[in-house]
Amino acid sequence: MNVEQYRVAPGAKIDLTEWDANDKNLFDGGKQQGQDALPALNKRLETLQELLYAEGKHKVLIVLQGMDTAGKDGVIRHVFNGVNPQGVKVASFKVPTPQELAQDYLWRIHKQTPGRGEIVIFNRSHYEDVLVVRVHNLVPPEVWERRYEHINAFEKLLTDEGTTILKFFLHISKEEQRQRLQERLDTPEKNWKFSMGDLAERKLWDQYMAAYEAVLSKTSTGHAPWCIVPANRKWYRNLIISHVIIQTLEGLNMRYPEGEPGLDKIVVE
Amino acid sequence: MNVEQYRVAPGAKIDLTEWDANDKNLFDGGKQQGQDALPALNKRLETLQELLYAEGKHKVLIVLQGMDTAGKDGVIRHVFNGVNPQGVKVASFKVPTPQELAQDYLWRIHKQTPGRGEIVIFNRSHYEDVLVVRVHNLVPPEVWERRYEHINAFEKLLTDEGTTILKFFLHISKEEQRQRLQERLDTPEKNWKFSMGDLAERKLWDQYMAAYEAVLSKTSTGHAPWCIVPANRKWYRNLIISHVIIQTLEGLNMRYPEGEPGLDKIVVE
Repeated sequence: MNVEQYRVAPGAKIDLTEWDANDKNLFDGGKQQGQDALPALNKRLETLQELLYAEGKHKVLIVLQGMDTAGKDGVIRHVFNGVNPQGVKVASFKVPTPQELAQDYLWRIHKQTPGRGEIVIFNRSHYEDVLVVRVHNLVPPEVWERRYEHINAFEKLLTDEGTTILKFFLHISKEEQRQRLQERLDTPEKNWKFSMGDLAERKLWDQYMAAYEAVLSKTSTGHAPWCIVPANRKWYRNLIISHVIIQTLEGLNMRYPEGEPGLDKIVVE
Repeated sequence: MNVEQYRVAPGAKIDLTEWDANDKNLFDGGKQQGQDALPALNKRLETLQELLYAEGKHKVLIVLQGMDTAGKDGVIRHVFNGVNPQGVKVASFKVPTPQELAQDYLWRIHKQTPGRGEIVIFNRSHYEDVLVVRVHNLVPPEVWERRYEHINAFEKLLTDEGTTILKFFLHISKEEQRQRLQERLDTPEKNWKFSMGDLAERKLWDQYMAAYEAVLSKTSTGHAPWCIVPANRKWYRNLIISHVIIQTLEGLNMRYPEGEPGLDKIVVE
């Protein structure tokens, strides 16, 4: 699957209205076939994760960003289904605590970056500091404007020191969000996922899109590229992300480490 | 399944030679049937974990201990297969770093304990501080002897503050370990799991059994009980642990939180 079309070229100027959240052009088939294609990818990812862990050389950081209901939790659940929980850590970044706010905004992020042999998934990330922070004017523009540069430098540090970074923007349409929120309201067992704040945030949709366009235009780099994933169809979103991760891991040319020499002669007593 | 027989009663004096690592008396069937029974339990655990997360009230700590090759990694992989990685964190405790050694031995442990709605699995734990530390005389006896009491008090703190603790000793026989180590030596793709240190540790088998007997006799409490899991058969080990966890979670009487009032009248625009 040639997923390159979803990758944001460094320096590209992104207008999200030109990106179709409904797109599914890379898959020849419908929802059922799409869902049926996922288990084989889960299996492949499981194998690659095991190799990553065994080799203990590379570090992998996966960043998930998107509007409320875009499917960040769903990706974690479905794309990583079956992968050894020991090798995959999820770091969820919520509203910062007072202690975190007393530090620079990358402090709490840096603490959660992967070590050798690890995959870490960021459910939201340092990008919130140029998204929600910008949209809600939590700091003056001159403060958030310089953050893109910090972020690129920070990610350069991580990649120079052995981390592979993949960043996914889960792209849903405003109409799709409406349906998903309505479903949370209409389904009693999903009520707990809903908060009134979700509607207030939804009113700021356009401001968020502008903030995301700035993120995608300024922070997709050769070392830490963004993918814009069409995410209206959950099954397609899962397939695309699975393929990107698998292709990236395959590109690392990992191999099982050799045992200590002479192992073949040992008899355990 | 009545798994009570594997629970260590508080104050019981444990002699591990009386516990059969080959036992499978609770399951009527062989390996294949045992393996076939696991996916339904995985599914049930997945549902319970989701409820735990949604309710956001309870904290669950699962401690895995056992000799090398006893199957700690295998339990994590198979018992938690399919469970949302976002809700389950694995904390592996290796040889302490200099910074960790500069603190008391529970300091690094406490940092990893679960928050509300979380399940944390300890792959090894604070018990190493009365196991490997004792067997290798890393501290004098008067220092490790008083640790059982610290540990019981620490676990009491955690449970009083809302944590459910389950501790599993994966019980394999010395002969079973011999076969598993030999297999790691004989299978090139498994060589990386082997280190010469494993053979040195194996020579101390009897000392480790004595140290485990002390742990099981002194630290199985009403609030944080130990289970001795017959672990020579991997499939049986997985079934027993799955059942204990599921029964414990079911006993918490969890329910989905109510949404904010009036949700049923909202129409998303």
